[in-house]
Amino acid sequence: MLHVVILAGGGGTRLWPLSRIHYPKQFLKLLGDYTLLQQTALRVRNLVSPDRQWIVTGKEQEFIVRAQLAALPGFDTLSGNILLEPEPRNTAAAIALAALHILRTDPHAVMVVLPADHWIERNDLFASLLITAAALAEQDMLVMIGIVPDHPATGYGYIQRGNRLPLRLPADVPAQELYQVAQFVEKPSLSAAQAYVDSETYYWNAGIFVWRATTILNEISIYLPRLYDGMQEIASSLADATSAKTVTEVYRRLDAVSIDYGVLEKSQRLLVLPADIGWSDLGEWTTIHRLSPQDERGNVLNGNVVNIDSEKTFVHSNGRVIATIGLQNTVIIDTDDALLICAQDRTQEVKGVVQQLQTRGAMVAYTARTVHRPWGTYTVLEEGPAFKVKRIFVNPGAALSLQLHRHRSEHWVVVSGVAEVINGDQHFILQANQSTYVPAGVTHRLTNSWTEPLEVIEVATGSYLGEDDIVRFDDIYQRTSQ
Amino acid sequence: MLHVVILAGGGGTRLWPLSRIHYPKQFLKLLGDYTLLQQTALRVRNLVSPDRQWIVTGKEQEFIVRAQLAALPGFDTLSGNILLEPEPRNTAAAIALAALHILRTDPHAVMVVLPADHWIERNDLFASLLITAAALAEQDMLVMIGIVPDHPATGYGYIQRGNRLPLRLPADVPAQELYQVAQFVEKPSLSAAQAYVDSETYYWNAGIFVWRATTILNEISIYLPRLYDGMQEIASSLADATSAKTVTEVYRRLDAVSIDYGVLEKSQRLLVLPADIGWSDLGEWTTIHRLSPQDERGNVLNGNVVNIDSEKTFVHSNGRVIATIGLQNTVIIDTDDALLICAQDRTQEVKGVVQQLQTRGAMVAYTARTVHRPWGTYTVLEEGPAFKVKRIFVNPGAALSLQLHRHRSEHWVVVSGVAEVINGDQHFILQANQSTYVPAGVTHRLTNSWTEPLEVIEVATGSYLGEDDIVRFDDIYQRTSQ
Repeated sequence: MLHVVILAGGGGTRLWPLSRIHYPKQFLKLLGDYTLLQQTALRVRNLVSPDRQWIVTGKEQEFIVRAQLAALPGFDTLSGNILLEPEPRNTAAAIALAALHILRTDPHAVMVVLPADHWIERNDLFASLLITAAALAEQDMLVMIGIVPDHPATGYGYIQRGNRLPLRLPADVPAQELYQVAQFVEKPSLSAAQAYVDSETYYWNAGIFVWRATTILNEISIYLPRLYDGMQEIASSLADATSAKTVTEVYRRLDAVSIDYGVLEKSQRLLVLPADIGWSDLGEWTTIHRLSPQDERGNVLNGNVVNIDSEKTFVHSNGRVIATIGLQNTVIIDTDDALLICAQDRTQEVKGVVQQLQTRGAMVAYTARTVHRPWGTYTVLEEGPAFKVKRIFVNPGAALSLQLHRHRSEHWVVVSGVAEVINGDQHFILQANQSTYVPAGVTHRLTNSWTEPLEVIEVATGSYLGEDDIVRFDDIYQRTSQ
Repeated sequence: MLHVVILAGGGGTRLWPLSRIHYPKQFLKLLGDYTLLQQTALRVRNLVSPDRQWIVTGKEQEFIVRAQLAALPGFDTLSGNILLEPEPRNTAAAIALAALHILRTDPHAVMVVLPADHWIERNDLFASLLITAAALAEQDMLVMIGIVPDHPATGYGYIQRGNRLPLRLPADVPAQELYQVAQFVEKPSLSAAQAYVDSETYYWNAGIFVWRATTILNEISIYLPRLYDGMQEIASSLADATSAKTVTEVYRRLDAVSIDYGVLEKSQRLLVLPADIGWSDLGEWTTIHRLSPQDERGNVLNGNVVNIDSEKTFVHSNGRVIATIGLQNTVIIDTDDALLICAQDRTQEVKGVVQQLQTRGAMVAYTARTVHRPWGTYTVLEEGPAFKVKRIFVNPGAALSLQLHRHRSEHWVVVSGVAEVINGDQHFILQANQSTYVPAGVTHRLTNSWTEPLEVIEVATGSYLGEDDIVRFDDIYQRTSQ
């Protein structure tokens, strides 16, 4: 059977301020109505049903992944397929972990590995390539989808093709060109990259692979024996109640190695299927601009924009009115707490801004004003020296932990939906336009037991208002140890 | 005695989004620690004590003027000197109204007319010019301060000087060049403006005038007899309780005429004192940029800015982090609800943005997110379909009207200061961290009877949340008829 493994871990800073270190680009709607993670899952939906789609991510992003998949038809019962890494250890470990899990139910599984944050224009062609690749994988080969480059990018890894191979596959498998791999080249100079593009024998390595789970684990046992041993330890713990502990211990001592460097560059089994599928990693704002529908002067003006005479300008507005006058080749990304204005040809330097903000310890590098939690989201509307106002959304069926705060009191006003409240020794219901007061030191809980979202305005007051002033007694998301 | 009349009415849109139609630039801190209105009052403080400074403004801006002047030492008892026009009727009416009021106590008064929203670099030289001008005014002349132009501006009015006159004044009056006026020229072409600058015989008309109150009223009686008649009607009503009504009736039928066009261009009494005083009307953002302290690459980066390699760029941040990468000659003005990004050489087109926003009926053209009221300010933090969250500041000694809302309920949480609350038939005190609930239809009032500011978070809920849902019963600011 064909399975899909979507690698959705890791942060990203190149699309700041829309992406943040703790809210990377796979979770953003950049092109179209779905986030990149959702688009990735939907892209292979016709080949691989949701129960055979596996997502590898980190604990902190689990609930975002879960919420985004649950919003897709047919994906709502996917919970067992979200695989959590206790800390990121690059792609070799993530792929091995997914292979272990898949093999538990399907010893002959073929797995397609997909990054969660890429864009593909020609999905039909891509699906046809995956079918061919899967057939090759059945013959114990490692198959890489090699992207036909359309410009001399210097930020990608290239692979040079070797000999062309005949395609010996059943007649119902789509015919494709097939090559051995001659060599890997990482991030070449511009002139080298241009030569590669002109030669028509180099492809971009997009991190899209197809192989049998047993084949890749076998290759890992040869080229990354320490990783293999660790994974065996995890495999034998999977049925245990303490498996999570084993995974954490094993991960702590794993090296972070990419599958490319650790296995593919050395393996004799690697083949490449050239793919001209309109691929992009959406790695900088100019790319999003290029792929978005533009007006006759080359502008993309998303949101409430008043433009006088600007050209080739990209605007992402978050609700605020944005006026642009006489701009050329400018990128403007506006969010609640951070604003980027960047020359089009400098968007690769956005990560330098994030680095500077990290050095200053600025929260705006890590999280957006709206923070995602297992139970929903909260947004800080205003902060003063002794108060903080939040807008809180609690998802249907969700509940915050049973908790108390030592230093802050909280006033809750329900503005939509219905709240079930524990406040000290009282347990009651609040409808819209009703409120309650939770003094410091009093145990409380906010629950949405209904099918509509619950929206609460919270005014917290006190001398200390940090999010770490929390004692959790009971939590349906297992956060009481935090 | 010397008096000063500061013309502080009128809106302004050229510094949007910092200025708004209902919050024009005289109320902004653009350069230095004081607003332009405050700087204007302080500029002549050594010549004219606060009790002889008169401010002409509109009813809607009265409390802003009052609050800004009250914040200046010595100006706190100025209330009788704020003259309200029921609607703007250009400068001739405003000047005549001020002259009437001044003459009630000082029949020989000399008045200096100053716009509230200008910048003057060399205040000592300016003061010395005013002393000379006042001495000339005593001889029944109309004196204009003529700004020596430093560039061929096309947006200003120019005056061409006539014959040079000998200065026949007491020895203790500073000696200055003095000229008759040959002609007025409005907004010339660039080539004409350049010729004027090169000739060294033209000056900018900055709207700064000195004359005796009786002289200007006499000239008005000759050249604007209808205005004069109306002002006589107002003058004879000033002692009556119904004077405000008379003023409103007279203003309704007045023509809007500038003093320049209506009187000065025709008068035989006009003289000009050339002034090289570093004057600017701060009419567009590039001017603010030019007058602000710049870094070595010509940038002015006010606020929380991360800059990589931008040049000649002006940033005004409102708290949000702003990242600028590789920009050239760009103006960025960020406010809570509106953002301007403009090429430096296009800042004169900002008013076109405001016009477009007015056409759309967008509030962002008229008011900022923080709205000024006689009793303090409020800021809308968030709005949803059925709720609105506000941060409310009530000044010491101030009170909102006794009021009720038909459609919305209000939850108040005091976050700093102490509130005196009327809520239905209850009357009580709320300390910080206490709250109350005012249901729709219940009469209520919020008062700050203490010397510290009162800060309240209000969560309003209901199906209609417009500010016009208010019935006022009692108001110390006389707004019950609204």
